[in-house]
Amino acid sequence: MPPLKQHFRILNTDPGSAARLGLLSTVHGEVHTPAFMPVGTQGTVKALTPDTVKSLGAEIILCNTYHLYLRPGHRLIESLGGLHRFMNWPGPILTDSGGFQVYSLGKLRKVTREGVIFQSHIDGSRHKITPELAIEIQEALNTDIMMCLDECTPWPAGFQEAESSLSLTLSWAERSRKARTNSSSQALYGIIQGGMYLELRRRAVEAITAMDFDGYALGGVSVGEPKPLMEQIVSETAPLLPEDRPHYLMGVGTPEDIVRAVDCGIDLFDCVMPTRCARHGLLFTNAEKVVIKNARYREDNGPLDSDCDCYTCRNFSRAYLRHLYVAGEILAMTLNTLHNIRYYMRLMEQIRSAIGRGQYAAFKTRFLKDRRMSEA
Amino acid sequence: MPPLKQHFRILNTDPGSAARLGLLSTVHGEVHTPAFMPVGTQGTVKALTPDTVKSLGAEIILCNTYHLYLRPGHRLIESLGGLHRFMNWPGPILTDSGGFQVYSLGKLRKVTREGVIFQSHIDGSRHKITPELAIEIQEALNTDIMMCLDECTPWPAGFQEAESSLSLTLSWAERSRKARTNSSSQALYGIIQGGMYLELRRRAVEAITAMDFDGYALGGVSVGEPKPLMEQIVSETAPLLPEDRPHYLMGVGTPEDIVRAVDCGIDLFDCVMPTRCARHGLLFTNAEKVVIKNARYREDNGPLDSDCDCYTCRNFSRAYLRHLYVAGEILAMTLNTLHNIRYYMRLMEQIRSAIGRGQYAAFKTRFLKDRRMSEA
Repeated sequence: MPPLKQHFRILNTDPGSAARLGLLSTVHGEVHTPAFMPVGTQGTVKALTPDTVKSLGAEIILCNTYHLYLRPGHRLIESLGGLHRFMNWPGPILTDSGGFQVYSLGKLRKVTREGVIFQSHIDGSRHKITPELAIEIQEALNTDIMMCLDECTPWPAGFQEAESSLSLTLSWAERSRKARTNSSSQALYGIIQGGMYLELRRRAVEAITAMDFDGYALGGVSVGEPKPLMEQIVSETAPLLPEDRPHYLMGVGTPEDIVRAVDCGIDLFDCVMPTRCARHGLLFTNAEKVVIKNARYREDNGPLDSDCDCYTCRNFSRAYLRHLYVAGEILAMTLNTLHNIRYYMRLMEQIRSAIGRGQYAAFKTRFLKDRRMSEA
Repeated sequence: MPPLKQHFRILNTDPGSAARLGLLSTVHGEVHTPAFMPVGTQGTVKALTPDTVKSLGAEIILCNTYHLYLRPGHRLIESLGGLHRFMNWPGPILTDSGGFQVYSLGKLRKVTREGVIFQSHIDGSRHKITPELAIEIQEALNTDIMMCLDECTPWPAGFQEAESSLSLTLSWAERSRKARTNSSSQALYGIIQGGMYLELRRRAVEAITAMDFDGYALGGVSVGEPKPLMEQIVSETAPLLPEDRPHYLMGVGTPEDIVRAVDCGIDLFDCVMPTRCARHGLLFTNAEKVVIKNARYREDNGPLDSDCDCYTCRNFSRAYLRHLYVAGEILAMTLNTLHNIRYYMRLMEQIRSAIGRGQYAAFKTRFLKDRRMSEA
């Protein structure tokens, strides 16, 4: 198979931490890492136009294989020229494999060695996703980074449950690798599972890296476990990953989670937090978490976040944002999402700048201290 | 009182019709007429940022006194610097008086000589709006054009009912005029009622124009009456209005309605049709009315309207718009509204261009013929 037209270069490493500044080059453009991927579940970052997403500084977004497979269907998107053209997002796109979404269905799913049988959350119809089908769907979507189908080990899980789940993920990873037909423009990342057992995580890293994927992801974290456990898993597993490949921490997280994980050498993040919180009127600022419907903002003529350079903060008062939210206006969703995504993008800019200056450890310490103070 | 810092100039008249090309100058900017005002009920044109509204070609918008009085309250908006600053819309704003919204409440309202007593649609609280209070609210909002409180005569209504309703509107107009304290930057328009009785409409014009308002509106049309009746009322009443003042047809209408009314000398329009239809997936094009959820658009890779220059039409396929709508995505509301408003703005540009060339009658005939054909 022809070589992958996608490169990952480490531009700088931080002397006081495992943080890395990187550049991921794809046929759809470059991504400066560490990067946060806004989530565009159904082929749109909710409430924003792709032009706006780009203007906020996003270089790569994530879409959901499971959702697009069910609606409108990957063959339809393929026939219309692929996902980039369909949603008019010219930059790189990563698709998850659908594993996590199927996991979230709970009783509506059944896992076998063959794959996952589940009922659609839309119309109850029955479907089976196998590792081979997950690759087929992602190749039809023609996204830049594909993920192997995996089984997300629940928390809590006993050692044997986690071990047998990992064994399934490993066999699916091998099948995913073999199912691939396009290796020239679409990268394929392997996923490290193993629950909260370091022993299993180590075994997972060994087996998955032996399969030589284009990048490596930590999955099965942020699934309900206590924060210290998540931090331990990330800090002890990330250093085992091959240095020359992108490291992706799936589904994470809060600004604090991201700042800590970058310290361990994580390059890519995704999370619904900024977009979902925005739609519920929870807005990120460095000084405080703003619950915009609160009565205290009723007459507040100041900007949401005086540190922020976004359209929302430059043009509207907290009183107006509160009014829009309380009145149930669609514009509330747009302005709130716009700000939260910009907040995350500015955070990533600050992170990259600190690594570039070789001062990431100091940045992290200060950031976490400021957050603790603002929440005290 | 100091003179009004607002001017209306007729730039051109059409030789074959009563259509006029005008320029309305306010302290917040100019409006080229005939103009359509997108409706921003609660201080936002639903689903669009003010920057987008402006970029679509809108020069003036309409906001609802009734809604803003109830939430967030006119005194709050006043204390925050007025409605323009509150919603970050720098251009002219017209506020209706709340009469039509209260009329729409049906059984929740009671009309007396003094004013209207009604229950809030939000929390059921009781309120009374008088002509004096309607002016007070609009002065607090500091909008560019205020409307007198009127009673919208329902359809059908007997002659005596319409006559007595008109008498109330006339006395409220006089009280509105007297209640005004700011005549330098805020215009006040009188409203012609009279139901579907030409005799009453004539009397209304006589009485209202004798009060010397800054502009004149036809109210109480498009309230359920057959189209030919509405056309008759507009075509026989509009020519009676003073030529040197703006003529505003309230709450109208479809593209066809607008094209016909311009022919009678109407300068200003407002209607929720483009925005509300957009949210229901009904999209305007010259060729056809597109119901975007229809299965026939599932694989349609073409633009919504190949004649249109808007962001939606330049960047997305019908198949994508259908997907967004069916999936219930917020972006569907944004892209659909954006297109429908741009459709109306382009219509007004075409109308003004035709009047400027002195060819409005021919434009109207062709436009209405094309629409009949596209609907056949």
